[in-house]
Amino acid sequence: SVYPLVPGHEIAGVVTEVGSDVKGFKPGDHVAVGTYINSCRDCDNCNNLLENHCSNFVFTFNGVDTDGTVTKGGYSTHIVVHERYCYKIPDGYPLDKAAPLACAGITVYTPMIRHNMNQPGKSLGVIGLGGLGHMAVKFGKAFGLNVTVLSTSESKRDEAINLLGADNFVVSSDKNQMEFLKNSLDFIVDTASGDHPFDPYLALLKVRGTMALVGFPGARTLSGSVVGGTKDTQEMINFCAANRIYPNVEVIKIDYINEALERLVNRDVKYRFVIDIESSFK
Amino acid sequence: SVYPLVPGHEIAGVVTEVGSDVKGFKPGDHVAVGTYINSCRDCDNCNNLLENHCSNFVFTFNGVDTDGTVTKGGYSTHIVVHERYCYKIPDGYPLDKAAPLACAGITVYTPMIRHNMNQPGKSLGVIGLGGLGHMAVKFGKAFGLNVTVLSTSESKRDEAINLLGADNFVVSSDKNQMEFLKNSLDFIVDTASGDHPFDPYLALLKVRGTMALVGFPGARTLSGSVVGGTKDTQEMINFCAANRIYPNVEVIKIDYINEALERLVNRDVKYRFVIDIESSFK
Repeated sequence: SVYPLVPGHEIAGVVTEVGSDVKGFKPGDHVAVGTYINSCRDCDNCNNLLENHCSNFVFTFNGVDTDGTVTKGGYSTHIVVHERYCYKIPDGYPLDKAAPLACAGITVYTPMIRHNMNQPGKSLGVIGLGGLGHMAVKFGKAFGLNVTVLSTSESKRDEAINLLGADNFVVSSDKNQMEFLKNSLDFIVDTASGDHPFDPYLALLKVRGTMALVGFPGARTLSGSVVGGTKDTQEMINFCAANRIYPNVEVIKIDYINEALERLVNRDVKYRFVIDIESSFK
Repeated sequence: SVYPLVPGHEIAGVVTEVGSDVKGFKPGDHVAVGTYINSCRDCDNCNNLLENHCSNFVFTFNGVDTDGTVTKGGYSTHIVVHERYCYKIPDGYPLDKAAPLACAGITVYTPMIRHNMNQPGKSLGVIGLGGLGHMAVKFGKAFGLNVTVLSTSESKRDEAINLLGADNFVVSSDKNQMEFLKNSLDFIVDTASGDHPFDPYLALLKVRGTMALVGFPGARTLSGSVVGGTKDTQEMINFCAANRIYPNVEVIKIDYINEALERLVNRDVKYRFVIDIESSFK
């Protein structure tokens, strides 16, 4: 860190002054500022409004802005920020409650929307019940999901259910409860910080379920797959016919099978042996 | 395995006879049969035409069917199969080339479609150049993708580029080539069998890129995320206002900050401290 350092990246306040080119804001507007206050505005990520992934984005505090100054965050009486990195707070929304939206809120909202978790009737597991986790529970309920909170501590049960409105609470160290939850969740949002294994949680997902880890740079996805359903299979065959896509095959007769198997082991085939059964028995 | 065993699960042939209730096929039709020939037809997965994920699905060979018989595969002169697990091969599509579609084809096609890899102009990496990998290259080119083959063996370069039409070829053990490819791929289809690390390949993905592993039961997804872009942030704030979603906060003044930080460390906050800067300086 560069000292003196002024922290704070969940900021809400009132506009006092705007530059002559500012179009979206006027004095008196209630606004929020989040974790970054600048980006290159010219790369693929900026052009896709994913400025958070711009490699030149500038942190709201302790970042080096394009003019070389070190940014200072929300523990301040004022902040100067380009309107692109400023958000309108709708009328009536309390300033104090708006502030955490600018980081905690968007951090859980983004993967939930990206992975289509806003499907009423589906089920969501939320790992960890802190600033991020409690927002994931709230978004989950607003999306119409059945929400299970997974926590290391039984002490959070009451607040999960009664304060936040979760439908279910499971202590993640309890093997019976975890076993009971297997293959039952459509989605998981993992807000737990610190090292922890993923496997016990992945096992809770249904087929084709998604677990989102917040705070992972790059936002990359790793996904399993195994063959396909009947509809997709017919569609794929039709696609191959329409686009003249043909596997490269070597057609053999059945009495060649032992040699073919040996060649398979040696990866000596381009790219599939196909046995012509009919002519094999002629 | 149950012996005697008749293998074969990429099957193409001609219909010789149909039952009286069969609607979709008639004698003479060219058809394919894939890796499964039955499923419960009553679970969520079957109802979503993801029969491959039905927990009671029956393998085409060496599976136990609902009547207790052990299934026998394509190394046969005939096979009896319910029409639901049978696929039409369009006129003119060669039978020998249709067979590998029923497993190799659908195995790579399914994750490519599921993860929206059919976007012309995007880039695809294909790990492994066997029966599955060569189909991934063909689908990739048909989808209009820029295709890079990643292989452990330099010997596959010629066939990747000249036989299959890949745009690029990289030996995965070559650190310079791999370094050059970092952050450049939208998608990766990993067809390599056997244990291998994922990290070197995940590093090749662009922001929000997806790597699909074929042959992973459950088809679950693990995805990273980090805050969000400006558009999503404004949308999230508006959503919170419209749905009366409010973070739970404890408002403090700036002179309480040291005590607040200690309470944060002890996880003693529901769920965010918010500093009221204005009243702190009154």
